[in-house]
Amino acid sequence: MSDLAGWRKRIDEIDQQLVKLLSERAQCALEIGHLKKAMELRTWQPEREAEILRNVVKANEGPLDDAAIRRLFERIIDEARSLERHSMDGGSSFRKE
Amino acid sequence: MSDLAGWRKRIDEIDQQLVKLLSERAQCALEIGHLKKAMELRTWQPEREAEILRNVVKANEGPLDDAAIRRLFERIIDEARSLERHSMDGGSSFRKE
Repeated sequence: MSDLAGWRKRIDEIDQQLVKLLSERAQCALEIGHLKKAMELRTWQPEREAEILRNVVKANEGPLDDAAIRRLFERIIDEARSLERHSMDGGSSFRKE
Repeated sequence: MSDLAGWRKRIDEIDQQLVKLLSERAQCALEIGHLKKAMELRTWQPEREAEILRNVVKANEGPLDDAAIRRLFERIIDEARSLERHSMDGGSSFRKE
């Protein structure tokens, strides 16, 4: 695969998989939120967040550097947290444009 | 899978796949950068970026809303772009902590 169109096609395929995984991850975070509520645990657990960041940095072999991977996962965690918060408020936050 | 530990394990597995896909995506972006340089095309092509965002929003079925998916992919595209820029400057930007 040596042409521009071929590489772009591969990026589009990867993006479809990323959307699926990010959605499944968000669903897991929602389930965890419900369980934590039922168990009366606090929602924000910074030690778990630190563990997640350690794991992804450890798995990283480039070409993105560790700081970039950490920035991306901080965003992913942040979106999960605000989804969880909206869900706890009783609203469905899913909006299709 | 109804316990907290089980859902967290699933998130950890998803994160390993996300790191792999994000890395492969970044590698594709680097290849595209090299090709564009060889073809003397400009690096930043906003119409391609808009196409990527349209595609991922179209693929989104929640629970993250479309705005959240768009924010995440804006970050992913942004990290790819700065990697490409560093690579064009001749440096390897991959740093392991």
